Amino acid sequence: MAKIGVFDSGVGGLTVLKELAQTFPSENFLYLGDTARLPYGTKSPETIRKYSEQIMDFLIEQKVDALIIACNTASSQVPETEWKKTPVFNVIEPGAAQAVKISESQRIGILGTRATVASQSYTFSIKALSDHAQIFSQACPLFVPLAEEGWTDDPITNLIAFRYLQPLLANQVDTVVLGCTHYPLLRTAIQKACGNSVNLVDSGSALCEKLNEAFHSGLLKKSTGEGSITFMATDLSPHTRALAERVLEPLHVGQFEVVNL
Amino acid sequence: MAKIGVFDSGVGGLTVLKELAQTFPSENFLYLGDTARLPYGTKSPETIRKYSEQIMDFLIEQKVDALIIACNTASSQVPETEWKKTPVFNVIEPGAAQAVKISESQRIGILGTRATVASQSYTFSIKALSDHAQIFSQACPLFVPLAEEGWTDDPITNLIAFRYLQPLLANQVDTVVLGCTHYPLLRTAIQKACGNSVNLVDSGSALCEKLNEAFHSGLLKKSTGEGSITFMATDLSPHTRALAERVLEPLHVGQFEVVNL
Repeated sequence: MAKIGVFDSGVGGLTVLKELAQTFPSENFLYLGDTARLPYGTKSPETIRKYSEQIMDFLIEQKVDALIIACNTASSQVPETEWKKTPVFNVIEPGAAQAVKISESQRIGILGTRATVASQSYTFSIKALSDHAQIFSQACPLFVPLAEEGWTDDPITNLIAFRYLQPLLANQVDTVVLGCTHYPLLRTAIQKACGNSVNLVDSGSALCEKLNEAFHSGLLKKSTGEGSITFMATDLSPHTRALAERVLEPLHVGQFEVVNL
Repeated sequence: MAKIGVFDSGVGGLTVLKELAQTFPSENFLYLGDTARLPYGTKSPETIRKYSEQIMDFLIEQKVDALIIACNTASSQVPETEWKKTPVFNVIEPGAAQAVKISESQRIGILGTRATVASQSYTFSIKALSDHAQIFSQACPLFVPLAEEGWTDDPITNLIAFRYLQPLLANQVDTVVLGCTHYPLLRTAIQKACGNSVNLVDSGSALCEKLNEAFHSGLLKKSTGEGSITFMATDLSPHTRALAERVLEPLHVGQFEVVNL
């Protein structure tokens, strides 16, 4: 039985897990949210790297066949495509590739946490694919708590989205990357702030395509039968549990577990 | 040379440190922000307790003469007034006492993080002082990131403050406790949302009075000469450093240090 390990600093990566589990319903997913140490977005590169290595080692002990970094902040500190012989997929590169593919003007906006923006990982990744791309980044520290409050369809969220998008729109971007796995929860507000002529790139769904390729190329073996989801967290408050269930709905979590790293 | 240890999950406790250092300019303050593991507000009581004990042990190794828990979330998990023979002061009890003292109607509102509200520490503390007090609590998860964005004088912050205050005002509170050390940074917006007839209790300044008593009673010895501030953090990004300097201004930080716990 193959297992796919997915991790994030918290529950944001569940938007990625949801897309993965809906696209590949026969797979067994082990999700780890490092909720005791979240958020990663405000931490230094060294700390983020250290935590990511600990989690990858832990998931490999659980015998996963692939590692998915469903966290932009962590992705920006783990450039490897393999860790201790296990293939690693991150959310940056697929998101960057999709943005380059669909942007007509090659003026691309990036929304992310402070750490993701400061790391310039999307900038480097896009520049490597498109010489003449122009990239405009904006850190959006309020988006994660807004998503976690559940204020997803709310005038306050619309105002904040508009505030954050304004500098990107002034630079006439035609494509905006949702560079944090929480942000798809605020997709409606962000699209309203952008207007319909701007493309939004959800790095989670870009990652799904990437995984699909890995199944087709034989890098990963497809499972058969009924898949499963195990949710592990380094700290499990009732709020975290409820939030996880709300984000994953209608998918069912087979097991909740607290783990120590 | 006496030293006073002050700690918080991050930089919020700096509002308390600032009040302390301005009130007691001859003292030497060691501030520890557990920035690598912030925020505490979303973590479980067990995790918050464990982290607080680690920090208190660390500060005692640095030979502090008093421990000040400048963090409501941590205060709610540390009821002790002494830890390994060192006096401990928290922000809950002084805030509760001041609220009871100034509220005419004894209808008191509490604003705090999810963890502080869930712990009901203010409720218990106030009830212990006033039989007929009625307490209404509201968790405000967006206030910390708003304060850290520096959107302190902003229509968006006013709207969010009004959203959070609305249920308390509907319950006709005449006093509201700023039950998180970040919140004094948003005092103007919160006061606007409450109206001028509602008293705001800043638990940091309530704590200053408490410390003043400890100096007068001889529990703590007053220092003489020029005081100092050392800022230690478990993770020190340029953003954290800049934020610390902005909050403490015009006070000067003698030293910045990264520590491992």
